[in-house]
Amino acid sequence: MKLVSFVQGQRQGYGAVKDGGIVDLSARLGPDGATIKDCLAHALGLAAAEVARTSADLALDEVTLLPPVPVPDKILCIGVNYADHAAEMGRAPPPYPTVFTRFADTLVGHGGALVRPGNSKDFDYEGELAVVIGRTARHVRAADAMAHVAGYACFQDASVRDFQRHTSQFIPGKNFPGTGGFGPWLVTADEVADPHALTLVTRVGGVERQRGRTADMIFKIPALIAYLSSFTTLRPGDVIATGTPAGVAAGRTLPPWLIPGDSVEVEIEQIGLLRNHVSQEG
Amino acid sequence: MKLVSFVQGQRQGYGAVKDGGIVDLSARLGPDGATIKDCLAHALGLAAAEVARTSADLALDEVTLLPPVPVPDKILCIGVNYADHAAEMGRAPPPYPTVFTRFADTLVGHGGALVRPGNSKDFDYEGELAVVIGRTARHVRAADAMAHVAGYACFQDASVRDFQRHTSQFIPGKNFPGTGGFGPWLVTADEVADPHALTLVTRVGGVERQRGRTADMIFKIPALIAYLSSFTTLRPGDVIATGTPAGVAAGRTLPPWLIPGDSVEVEIEQIGLLRNHVSQEG
Repeated sequence: MKLVSFVQGQRQGYGAVKDGGIVDLSARLGPDGATIKDCLAHALGLAAAEVARTSADLALDEVTLLPPVPVPDKILCIGVNYADHAAEMGRAPPPYPTVFTRFADTLVGHGGALVRPGNSKDFDYEGELAVVIGRTARHVRAADAMAHVAGYACFQDASVRDFQRHTSQFIPGKNFPGTGGFGPWLVTADEVADPHALTLVTRVGGVERQRGRTADMIFKIPALIAYLSSFTTLRPGDVIATGTPAGVAAGRTLPPWLIPGDSVEVEIEQIGLLRNHVSQEG
Repeated sequence: MKLVSFVQGQRQGYGAVKDGGIVDLSARLGPDGATIKDCLAHALGLAAAEVARTSADLALDEVTLLPPVPVPDKILCIGVNYADHAAEMGRAPPPYPTVFTRFADTLVGHGGALVRPGNSKDFDYEGELAVVIGRTARHVRAADAMAHVAGYACFQDASVRDFQRHTSQFIPGKNFPGTGGFGPWLVTADEVADPHALTLVTRVGGVERQRGRTADMIFKIPALIAYLSSFTTLRPGDVIATGTPAGVAAGRTLPPWLIPGDSVEVEIEQIGLLRNHVSQEG
């Protein structure tokens, strides 16, 4: 299934994409599937059965897409997780996953605006594969980790580079509002045979800027879940942004920063295409 | 006022300390004061009037104290914000505040256990002054910042040093469950004439390990709020842990790490005394 969260008028809901429309699952699955987090935790089987037996309730163009999980409890991002990107940023491949966090209010869904801040022009793109957790994970071994994954989505980890480099800690540059593109949907794990065999492409204004293979992650998804769950509890709906391959603006001599009006795409094989545009704050 | 959050039996509530007991404010202030976050945002005046006109409903020993704000949306922590601590950690005083985050599930209230993880013995204390936000702040100038502060509390930013040093990013070492002591209460800002004129002492097993003056913060509270609000929105109940002075275990040749059974106190003049004990995970 491709699960989406959406707003229609004043109402927020979630559902599954079918025949170019949406089967609205918001009120169909009982308390076990009241929210998309509940659904990921308890009701994916029920949801699949419902989607199979019914037709779409809504057209995709009737709704505004939200991030597939609109308010994750935890968004854990992995820095320098592709060797070619580590090299372009002048960082040695790390001995452990490099972990930073985003607040949920940084997220924006498919079609939404990535907001270039008023206090910086160093606005960069980072196309990434996002992993969404379905089953609570704490002290999980890598060999058992994939059973905790609900699905995958495209992620745009847009970064304000000067703020990221103010000190050793990345947090300020990664937490401006409207800088975390996430969507268009969550593809459930059963539909992705091997998440480490996907091509990821980032385009700005239609021009390819990044092309990577998830096979080239330094720390693969099982290792990430094992490491993250060694210090925190991962819960249904939590997001792991798995890092970006080479090609970001900051890695170039004259960085082609994002500017208002740019269209930015992250396309991942078998997952989908996340498109956002850049707007100016204020 | 001294505001506390608590659990009594199955019920969670919040109130104000009066005559050694608690005036339960949970259901007394209407929708503007339904939760402590609401109260900080909208109903501090109403709460003060209620506390003045009534007597305590509960004895302090009838309840278990929670963190004053049990689930802040954002917990922003400032690293190396005292010059003497920067020196002992081998870090240069930074040009900007060094910002990392904690998840809310790291928090523990007064009297609760700081949990030494099963996968590390490098468990360190960091006594800090916490600032709690009362009014939404975005792009706030330092000169206007103090109007956004609801109050202050003691904070124990207990740190798992080996995980903190796995990579450049502090997040893993700062996000183990049960490592963020916060309490015992929030002292409202009207009762603290100058938050930069307070002595802060950390004791382990009754022995003083840290003694600092909030006057020695490198970035003072107005500068912190100005900087943080330049990249994120601070909302009522959000917490800023303002950094720790010298004296942590990691700064000593033979680090006196916390061990199970240790009692750990953070005492701040005019604010209170936060006491936790160390337990072992599992």
